Amino acid sequence: MSGNTISVLFKVTTWGESHGPATGAIIDGCPPGIDLSEAEIQAELDRRRPGTLPSASTRREMDRVEILSGVFEGKTLGTPISLMIRNRDVKSDAYDDLRDLFRPGHGDITYQAKYGIRDHRGGGRASGRETVGRVAAGAIARKVIAQAGMIVTAWTRELGGIAAHPLSLAAAEASPLRCPDPEAEKRMAARLEEARASGDTLGGIVEIVVRGCPPGLGDPVFGKIDADFASALMGIGTVKGVEIGAGFEAARMTGAACNDPIGPEGFRTNHAGGILAGITSGAEIVIRVACKPIPSIACPQDTIDVKGRPAVVTVSGRHDVSVIPRIVPVCEAMVSIVLADHLLRQKAITP
Amino acid sequence: MSGNTISVLFKVTTWGESHGPATGAIIDGCPPGIDLSEAEIQAELDRRRPGTLPSASTRREMDRVEILSGVFEGKTLGTPISLMIRNRDVKSDAYDDLRDLFRPGHGDITYQAKYGIRDHRGGGRASGRETVGRVAAGAIARKVIAQAGMIVTAWTRELGGIAAHPLSLAAAEASPLRCPDPEAEKRMAARLEEARASGDTLGGIVEIVVRGCPPGLGDPVFGKIDADFASALMGIGTVKGVEIGAGFEAARMTGAACNDPIGPEGFRTNHAGGILAGITSGAEIVIRVACKPIPSIACPQDTIDVKGRPAVVTVSGRHDVSVIPRIVPVCEAMVSIVLADHLLRQKAITP
Amino acid sequence: MSGNTISVLFKVTTWGESHGPATGAIIDGCPPGIDLSEAEIQAELDRRRPGTLPSASTRREMDRVEILSGVFEGKTLGTPISLMIRNRDVKSDAYDDLRDLFRPGHGDITYQAKYGIRDHRGGGRASGRETVGRVAAGAIARKVIAQAGMIVTAWTRELGGIAAHPLSLAAAEASPLRCPDPEAEKRMAARLEEARASGDTLGGIVEIVVRGCPPGLGDPVFGKIDADFASALMGIGTVKGVEIGAGFEAARMTGAACNDPIGPEGFRTNHAGGILAGITSGAEIVIRVACKPIPSIACPQDTIDVKGRPAVVTVSGRHDVSVIPRIVPVCEAMVSIVLADHLLRQKAITP
Amino acid sequence: MSGNTISVLFKVTTWGESHGPATGAIIDGCPPGIDLSEAEIQAELDRRRPGTLPSASTRREMDRVEILSGVFEGKTLGTPISLMIRNRDVKSDAYDDLRDLFRPGHGDITYQAKYGIRDHRGGGRASGRETVGRVAAGAIARKVIAQAGMIVTAWTRELGGIAAHPLSLAAAEASPLRCPDPEAEKRMAARLEEARASGDTLGGIVEIVVRGCPPGLGDPVFGKIDADFASALMGIGTVKGVEIGAGFEAARMTGAACNDPIGPEGFRTNHAGGILAGITSGAEIVIRVACKPIPSIACPQDTIDVKGRPAVVTVSGRHDVSVIPRIVPVCEAMVSIVLADHLLRQKAITP
Repeated sequence: MSGNTISVLFKVTTWGESHGPATGAIIDGCPPGIDLSEAEIQAELDRRRPGTLPSASTRREMDRVEILSGVFEGKTLGTPISLMIRNRDVKSDAYDDLRDLFRPGHGDITYQAKYGIRDHRGGGRASGRETVGRVAAGAIARKVIAQAGMIVTAWTRELGGIAAHPLSLAAAEASPLRCPDPEAEKRMAARLEEARASGDTLGGIVEIVVRGCPPGLGDPVFGKIDADFASALMGIGTVKGVEIGAGFEAARMTGAACNDPIGPEGFRTNHAGGILAGITSGAEIVIRVACKPIPSIACPQDTIDVKGRPAVVTVSGRHDVSVIPRIVPVCEAMVSIVLADHLLRQKAITP
Repeated sequence: MSGNTISVLFKVTTWGESHGPATGAIIDGCPPGIDLSEAEIQAELDRRRPGTLPSASTRREMDRVEILSGVFEGKTLGTPISLMIRNRDVKSDAYDDLRDLFRPGHGDITYQAKYGIRDHRGGGRASGRETVGRVAAGAIARKVIAQAGMIVTAWTRELGGIAAHPLSLAAAEASPLRCPDPEAEKRMAARLEEARASGDTLGGIVEIVVRGCPPGLGDPVFGKIDADFASALMGIGTVKGVEIGAGFEAARMTGAACNDPIGPEGFRTNHAGGILAGITSGAEIVIRVACKPIPSIACPQDTIDVKGRPAVVTVSGRHDVSVIPRIVPVCEAMVSIVLADHLLRQKAITP
Repeated sequence: MSGNTISVLFKVTTWGESHGPATGAIIDGCPPGIDLSEAEIQAELDRRRPGTLPSASTRREMDRVEILSGVFEGKTLGTPISLMIRNRDVKSDAYDDLRDLFRPGHGDITYQAKYGIRDHRGGGRASGRETVGRVAAGAIARKVIAQAGMIVTAWTRELGGIAAHPLSLAAAEASPLRCPDPEAEKRMAARLEEARASGDTLGGIVEIVVRGCPPGLGDPVFGKIDADFASALMGIGTVKGVEIGAGFEAARMTGAACNDPIGPEGFRTNHAGGILAGITSGAEIVIRVACKPIPSIACPQDTIDVKGRPAVVTVSGRHDVSVIPRIVPVCEAMVSIVLADHLLRQKAITP
Repeated sequence: MSGNTISVLFKVTTWGESHGPATGAIIDGCPPGIDLSEAEIQAELDRRRPGTLPSASTRREMDRVEILSGVFEGKTLGTPISLMIRNRDVKSDAYDDLRDLFRPGHGDITYQAKYGIRDHRGGGRASGRETVGRVAAGAIARKVIAQAGMIVTAWTRELGGIAAHPLSLAAAEASPLRCPDPEAEKRMAARLEEARASGDTLGGIVEIVVRGCPPGLGDPVFGKIDADFASALMGIGTVKGVEIGAGFEAARMTGAACNDPIGPEGFRTNHAGGILAGITSGAEIVIRVACKPIPSIACPQDTIDVKGRPAVVTVSGRHDVSVIPRIVPVCEAMVSIVLADHLLRQKAITP
């Protein structure tokens, strides 16, 4: 979990700057003999592409994934799977004005502080584009965990302060905003249009649900699966909060109300969100993440330049109004990667 | 971050079951030449001891730390520091009734599912007692980061639904509930007494603040310092949510409101909580964690036994009413360990 | 494999200075449900104790291992197993003269260069005593791999230039010098006595043989099992060379002579030493390590002090004449640990 | 050091099958601000290309490296550096006969045992071609350690049983066989021609020398730098033995002869090979590796097929007669990577 690699056995490393030649991922530790095609990975990448909704940028990304290694005659070899997606449609000149300016809310100023150098074009490594590699890797993780019966689904629970209720998780996939509540979705779309008109952006809350997870996944203490979920999700650029099961609401409950009674048929409630003492219980896993509004806004903002002098920056270019819904498959990917890793770890110690 | 070890360079491994012979920690990667005595570590352990407040159990823990290696003539050697605390005052018989029963809200059922065996006495490895090792290791981390000017302070922001406002962080240390708001503290104490009387327990929210953190700590993508904070804190048994800066509130803000404007004097607001793109900005780091109520309640609860048969369990024994305030130094310890690790990682790449 | 921890899943961390309060090991990742007693570990420690042969020091070590965690009612829990051995019979004053002197052939000068501080008493962390923790951990690894039918045996192939031929591996255990060739053993003993009389020391070669290893253990490229054996064995203080199968002799063979022909009954020769492309083949694993003579000799040697001034040092105290035979169980332990780790790693990816 | 990744801070992951679309490496942890161009990496790749000597295959590899990330305007960014080399000139049909046969001395049989599937074309991941990624990564490691004054040079010490003596290390680079002893080189060339004529292959010994290494690199116990060298070099497919300093010869020396006396001017001999207790001493580092003969020989060999039935295999195609001299830059690359990693690790703990 250091640098640019996550996991112990199902290891994923992503690489690539937003406006560099390409972006990609290595998956090291995928079990052998799994059917895998570029088309399957491409399908997941297409789910994260900008659509035609008010939330989307007008930028057209044509992300074509190429499998460079680790797959032979349509099956995984057990060796590292190298995935590459060329960066296209790159208008780097639009970023010339930002070479010496730090955009508020962005990593410009911290990358400069850390490295003394940065690729200022489109956020470089801190760009949302980095998540392309995650989604590609997540597509493979999904296949690994599907073999054990696990299905990961995320949906838009809140956008711009408008809350939704899931009528059915299946409906989320059909919705352009990944929101299974049609009435809320309509209001969200209007709210997005409103924000776009004023050059502003919106945040939201995504909920991730895992069905079919077997009990016993997760290590004690520093390899707890909830700790790994938290790390994997908080490591998405936009995320400022992670909660599991009752989450922050649990802080206001009493023990008698919060404990989930157990019957022969299973847990009668699910305030634990499917995890007890860092190990899955077999109940549905429920996680929520808070996404901040995209920091690239079309209004002038106070900032400083690399020499510390006051300046005003206005971020132009094509930008999304909200990371939702594009962040939804990214959340699914991260949760799938963590599950795949713990599934393999558990296999290692099971007699 | 797997199994029972955390961090890359300042590595901490904890070990020990609640009712086994001892509990402890290894710190591997502590820089050499740092003054270190058992008394300093002991002082931190004493901060996490049960006190005389309504929240505290009547159990008397006499945790005496012993430094077994890595320190010579009062200075760290650079080699592993082994710390051991003998378990005393252990009344294991009280747990005999729990040998075959799963307490709701506890890890009993998931440890059994994972390992097919467990130490049922006092929660075994999943006990809050495991945090003794963390606090001991954190005492050393504190010294490492103090050399770079960092101070970590946590305080009770909410308990049993009662919110506090920090008048001064210094006041937290003086308060038995680690709550710097005397009026709120009084109401919290009453709420604790009330819960104890009814055999119930309470949750709460702890806020951790880091002052003096230099900019530039944190790796891109999967070694983001906020991801590491989230992992370190979510890995505390009681924690169900972690948020940074504006946290979940950021999901309801617009970009114009959420972005922190930058001036020559620094950031003008701190919705980012001191972290941008996973790297510290030099602003104060602000993290909040949601603690669930302690699951050991004195009321009968529905459950099952190891054979899946329905049963009723009543947890007797001496238990705290809330993890607050004892969890406060644990949160400080975990944040200190993450900071120490990233401080060393940053030194490695700085010219 | 950094700092003081080895392996990915069956992780072993050792700690302890030679003349500090204690020495020990943590085993994190041992599968649950394995029978384990202190007596079993003690038996391995006793195998590494100084004996009554000419090679042995007159120092009497009474190493008593204590299991502090991870075992419950005689079975492993799956949680970290903490082992501690108190250091006794410690005459630290004998080392006072060495506080400011660097003994040739020892780590005194490099520890000082690295850390700017060192525990000069008995070599501190660089002492052969550190291997106590390895042997204790190896005792547990042995049990894990025995479940898969693996047996690890090491024997003294050469001592002070006297070569032995194995009549039977079983005979090695009965021999005080772990040498299954009685005639050679007699000459080795005489050679040891001769060296002791002159205050000098001897080196030798140990061969480690693994029988019953299943095919398929080892990862490609940087997790090759031969690379892990090499690392684990070269990391023993005394070892200056490691070779597998035909080893250095392979450099002088032609391909036609070196390739092991394969028949339906298996490999017809074993120049590969049981490993092809870093993965076990099912044939017997054969590894040899070169041990340098113990650097603590009773003759005056030119050196410098911590200030770089010329000096003469004569190492007094009780010292072995050779690391053989005490290093033999250490080699077995390291090989067992590597095998246990790869056994678990292979289980993780096997359908 | 697991799977396909090596090192703690200067992490290198290689990927790619011999006859897949491409091969490459990720370097994660390279410090920022280092000048780096494709031409510099290309120069190292060209050093490992088949030449015109008798030892070389007639295969023409046109390895063109492409930097896909981590470098901006000619300087490293501190983010992952992704390197890709397309595989060209691939005649996969030549391997059709090997689909179901195991070549003696190759990893065919062990990959099949491990994964149940393999890319039979040209050895797949176990091919010598995998070292392209290592050499590319090593080119960057070289630049990192050059900043600290370190120079790594390897040379052909022995080939086909013919030993050389280094007249000057500089001469090695000029020699097509990387042998600085012109007389020995002539005999080696004749020996290679002889082996080629008979369809056989040869092994040899490479010595690696590091000049300018500062004292203090290496961790105690399981992160010893000699252990890391051993792992990095034994992990090269062809290597069956590694020794440091006096190596196996040390096993036959006495302590009085083997210890290197220390004077104010430094070590007076170098039997330790520049490493004491796993930490560099400042003396020249000297390592030797034994390379087995290439297993692809043009003579019929007994083997079995995937169903265990007896068969005879004759390996056709274009193959080198010896891994020497092409392995020489690979050894340099691996040693450079280990040094870069430990250089960064040491910086992390130095005040």
